[in-house]
Amino acid sequence: MPLATKGAVKGLEPRDVEALGYEMVLANTFHLFLAPGPEVISEFGGVGRFMRWGRPVISDSGGFQVFSMGHGTVADEIKGRRAQGERSGAILNIAEDGVRFRSYLDGRERFLGPETSMEVQAALHSDIALVFDECTPFNVSRDYTARSTERTHRWLGRCLQWHGDHGPRDQVVYGIVQGGVFEDLRRESAATLAASACEGIAIGGSLGQDKAQMYEVVAWTTEELERGAPARPRHLLGIGDIDDLITGVELGIDTFDCAIPTRLGRHGVALVPSPERRWRLDLVKAPSRLDPRPILEGCPCPACSSGFSRAYLHYLLRAGELTAMRLVSLHNLSYTARLMSDLRSAIHAGALEQTAAALRAGAPPVGSGPPTSCTGGPGS
Amino acid sequence: MPLATKGAVKGLEPRDVEALGYEMVLANTFHLFLAPGPEVISEFGGVGRFMRWGRPVISDSGGFQVFSMGHGTVADEIKGRRAQGERSGAILNIAEDGVRFRSYLDGRERFLGPETSMEVQAALHSDIALVFDECTPFNVSRDYTARSTERTHRWLGRCLQWHGDHGPRDQVVYGIVQGGVFEDLRRESAATLAASACEGIAIGGSLGQDKAQMYEVVAWTTEELERGAPARPRHLLGIGDIDDLITGVELGIDTFDCAIPTRLGRHGVALVPSPERRWRLDLVKAPSRLDPRPILEGCPCPACSSGFSRAYLHYLLRAGELTAMRLVSLHNLSYTARLMSDLRSAIHAGALEQTAAALRAGAPPVGSGPPTSCTGGPGS
Repeated sequence: MPLATKGAVKGLEPRDVEALGYEMVLANTFHLFLAPGPEVISEFGGVGRFMRWGRPVISDSGGFQVFSMGHGTVADEIKGRRAQGERSGAILNIAEDGVRFRSYLDGRERFLGPETSMEVQAALHSDIALVFDECTPFNVSRDYTARSTERTHRWLGRCLQWHGDHGPRDQVVYGIVQGGVFEDLRRESAATLAASACEGIAIGGSLGQDKAQMYEVVAWTTEELERGAPARPRHLLGIGDIDDLITGVELGIDTFDCAIPTRLGRHGVALVPSPERRWRLDLVKAPSRLDPRPILEGCPCPACSSGFSRAYLHYLLRAGELTAMRLVSLHNLSYTARLMSDLRSAIHAGALEQTAAALRAGAPPVGSGPPTSCTGGPGS
Repeated sequence: MPLATKGAVKGLEPRDVEALGYEMVLANTFHLFLAPGPEVISEFGGVGRFMRWGRPVISDSGGFQVFSMGHGTVADEIKGRRAQGERSGAILNIAEDGVRFRSYLDGRERFLGPETSMEVQAALHSDIALVFDECTPFNVSRDYTARSTERTHRWLGRCLQWHGDHGPRDQVVYGIVQGGVFEDLRRESAATLAASACEGIAIGGSLGQDKAQMYEVVAWTTEELERGAPARPRHLLGIGDIDDLITGVELGIDTFDCAIPTRLGRHGVALVPSPERRWRLDLVKAPSRLDPRPILEGCPCPACSSGFSRAYLHYLLRAGELTAMRLVSLHNLSYTARLMSDLRSAIHAGALEQTAAALRAGAPPVGSGPPTSCTGGPGS
C-alpha cells in the first residue's frame, strides 16, 4: 500500500496509483486529526471520497506518530537506530486513557487515546481501522515493554468496545501485535490478538536492530498467529525494503505499507534489481549524468516506458524539478507493485521458494498485475 | 505555450501537456546553457528528445534572462514595476559582442552573444530559435532605448548570418521587435523585422507600466507588421494574463508563452472566469476551506473532472502537498488552452469581436480543441 499520509500519495493523483494496480492506500490518522480535522473529512463523506480515491483505505491509529514524538522526532529510534533518550518533544503526558501532546502545527494541546483514535477513524470512514497502540522503541527494557504491551492489549479491548458501540458498520478493525524484540512478549501478544475479535492483524513496534532480528520477530509472530482461528490477513506495518517484502511474504505476511517507494522517489533514488546495492540506484549521483538508458530496461512504468533517460532524470533532480520526483516515485511504486504481484502468482503456482530466491538474487519483477478486480469500499 | 524553462513543464509529464492539447512548449536557452549544458542536450538529440516531448519546441534566446540580471533580479523592472536601479547582479560586461556574466549555479564566468546564443539553440535543436536581443526595462531613457534597439538590430543580422552558415536546416528563426514604449522606435523596429528574413516575429522588451500602454505598444507593432510581406506568425513574449491573451489576439498576436498558468498553479491560484478578480481564485485562502465545488463546474481538466473539491485542494496546498500544485497547474493550463481554442474558432467563424467580449465579460471558455493535429518536429 502506498502511503497517502496526509490524504494524497505525494505528487501523484489517485488515477496514477490505480493505473499502477494498487488496491489500497494508507492514510494517517495522526496527521489528518490535526489538519484538516476529522469533522472536515467527515463532512466530505470520509477520506476516500475527500481524496477521490475509489478503492479501499486503511487508516493507521496515530499510535506510532504520537509515540515517535516521545521516543525521538523520527522513526529512527523506533527502528533501533538511535541511542536511548529521555522522553522529550511534544508529548505532555502518557496515561491509561491515552496521550496528551502538542500539535506540531499550532502548538495546541491535543489528545489521542483508544476511543478518540477510533472516533477519528470513524469520521475518516476508512475501510480498515487500526487499534490504538503504544509503539515501543528498540532501546527500552523488557520490563517497560511488558507493561506497555499489556496496556496495548487493554487498549485493544477499549478500541473494539468503542467500535462495536459507535463504529461504522462497514469498517473493519485490525489489531496490532506488540512485544518488542522479546520472544515471550511477542508470542503472548500474537496469541492475545489471535484470540481477539479483530478482523485482521498488524505487526508493529520495534522489530529489532537489523534485518535478521526483524525476520526473527516476524517469524515468532506469524507462527503464533497460525495457531489462531479463523485465519486473518496479516499486515506488517511500515516495512518495505525489497528484501523485507520478499522475506515478509515467505514468513506469512499478506500486506505491507511503506514510505520507501515515494520517499526514495522524491529524493531521486530508484528501485532496481541490484541486491548488492540494496535495490537502489541514486540517480542524483554522477554515474547517471550521461547515461542514456531508462531506469530499468523493459520496465512498463510511466518513466521507463516513455523513454526518459537516467541522464535527463539526473539533470532534472539536480535542478529540483518536481517532474523528476513524480517520475521516480511512479517507477518505484510500479516496481514494488510488480514484485508483490510476482510473489502472489508464485504462491498460487506453488513456487514461492524459487521466485523469492530469484527476486532476492536480483531478477527483475515481471508483474502479472493486481490479484483481483476491486470495486471499492465506502470511500468509493 | 506552456513553459518548459529547464526542460520540463513543472510538475507535469509531456503526456499531460499533450493531453491538454498544447502543440509547443518554450524552453529556456539561458538555463539550459548553464545546466545541463548544450553539449549534453545535443548528445541526446536535442531538447525535444531529451525531455521526451514529441511536438515542436521554441527556445528563447537567453537575452531576457541575461539582461534581467543586470536590470534587477526578477522581471519586475522589465515590466515597469520597479524603480530604476544601478546595473548590478551578475552582469560583468555588456559589449557589442554580447554579455559576460556570472553563472548563478557555480559563479563561473560565462558569455552569451548573438552567435553563442544561436550556437546553443542549434545544439538544443529547437524547432524555432529566437534571435539574441537586448531586453530593455521600462525605466530607461529614450536615448538608451534607441541605442539598444539599434544594437538588437545589428545582433539580428549576426544571428541570421550564423544560422544561415551553421544552423540546423529544420530550425526556423524568429526575430524580436524591441523599441521600448517609444512609438517611433517600436515602429522602426517592427519595420526592420518585417523587412528581415526571419520566419516569425516576436515582440519583446518593455511593454509599458500598465495594460493600456502594453496594448498600445502591441498595436503599433502589429500595425507595422501588417505592412510587411510575407505575413508571418507573431508571438508575444512572456504575456499570459487572461485579458492580455484576449486583447492580444484581437491585436493580431498568434502565439504566447507565459509562466502564469503553472506558476499560479504551484502557488494554489486557479484561473476562473471572474474578470472582477483578474480571473483568479486563491484556493489557499479561507473561503475555499469547506467549499465542496470543483474549481470550475463543467471544466474538463483532470482536477475538475475528477471531482476534487476546493476544500480538498485548499487543505493539500496548506499542507504543502505536491499533488495539489500539479492539479491546479493542470487546471490552469487547460483553462488557457481552451480559451485560446475559443479565440481561434471565433476567428474562423468571423466572430472574434463577440467571443472576445464574452470572454472578457467572464464567459467560461468552451474549448473545442487544438487547431490541427501536429506531427512533431526534430524533437520527436
